[in-house]
Amino acid sequence: MNDALLTDATAFLHDQIPLTRAMGVEVQSWDGRELCLTAPLEPNHNHLGTAFGGSLSALVTLAGYSLLWLLLGDREAHIVIRDSSIRYRHPVRGELRALCRHPGDEAWRAFQAQFSANGRARLTLQVAIVEEDRVCVEFEGVFVALR
Amino acid sequence: MNDALLTDATAFLHDQIPLTRAMGVEVQSWDGRELCLTAPLEPNHNHLGTAFGGSLSALVTLAGYSLLWLLLGDREAHIVIRDSSIRYRHPVRGELRALCRHPGDEAWRAFQAQFSANGRARLTLQVAIVEEDRVCVEFEGVFVALR
Repeated sequence: MNDALLTDATAFLHDQIPLTRAMGVEVQSWDGRELCLTAPLEPNHNHLGTAFGGSLSALVTLAGYSLLWLLLGDREAHIVIRDSSIRYRHPVRGELRALCRHPGDEAWRAFQAQFSANGRARLTLQVAIVEEDRVCVEFEGVFVALR
Repeated sequence: MNDALLTDATAFLHDQIPLTRAMGVEVQSWDGRELCLTAPLEPNHNHLGTAFGGSLSALVTLAGYSLLWLLLGDREAHIVIRDSSIRYRHPVRGELRALCRHPGDEAWRAFQAQFSANGRARLTLQVAIVEEDRVCVEFEGVFVALR
């Protein structure tokens, strides 16, 4: 995705979901396989000076949502999150950096077939918060798209 | 808890965790058994005009954290979240209202004994987001206190 599209995607998030503006979320990169969202520590720190768990959970939720939105490319579709689990392994001391990978071609084809047939389908996505090559937070969420 | 203490607790959150200020989080009530945190919809809405999943997950995380902090009453202790799961059952269309209940006397005594012995203990807490008597979001989190 080129720089203009990344800027557009960031502006869309800030416009539609005001908390993303307060968090300073940016769509950093998207190559069709992996999406990277970032947010600076400063507006997202906790009482210990590390990243607030609520900011981390908001960012990973947003990363999963955004990946499905980008893959789907259907502006008429609504995407919601159904459930998720998160594991906080290590504190995040600097920039918050969420990586969400494509779910794999087989899962994606199954999703597309279900969505075409029913106008509704669910997809499980994994997101990691990574700092200096270390996975600090692991997230898995089930997202539902509805037409 | 009287009004001045609730105002103090809210100010503490806004001061220490800036995202809570952006979200408009307020410590609404605490009677020693149940804690209520609220946040207005306006800064927390998504692209559909309902509550953003990231705001909901941040609020429930904060409710669990705050309940443990209030129960523990130990300013030297650090509290962190280890893992959590969340289920989004229904969209939230108005004010976000998180209720976290005391974990029960038995679980609390076990936590206290472990914390006294080891300077470290974990506690599982449930939080619900409730709107018009309907549970819209269910959360369970494991929190760890460290001295």
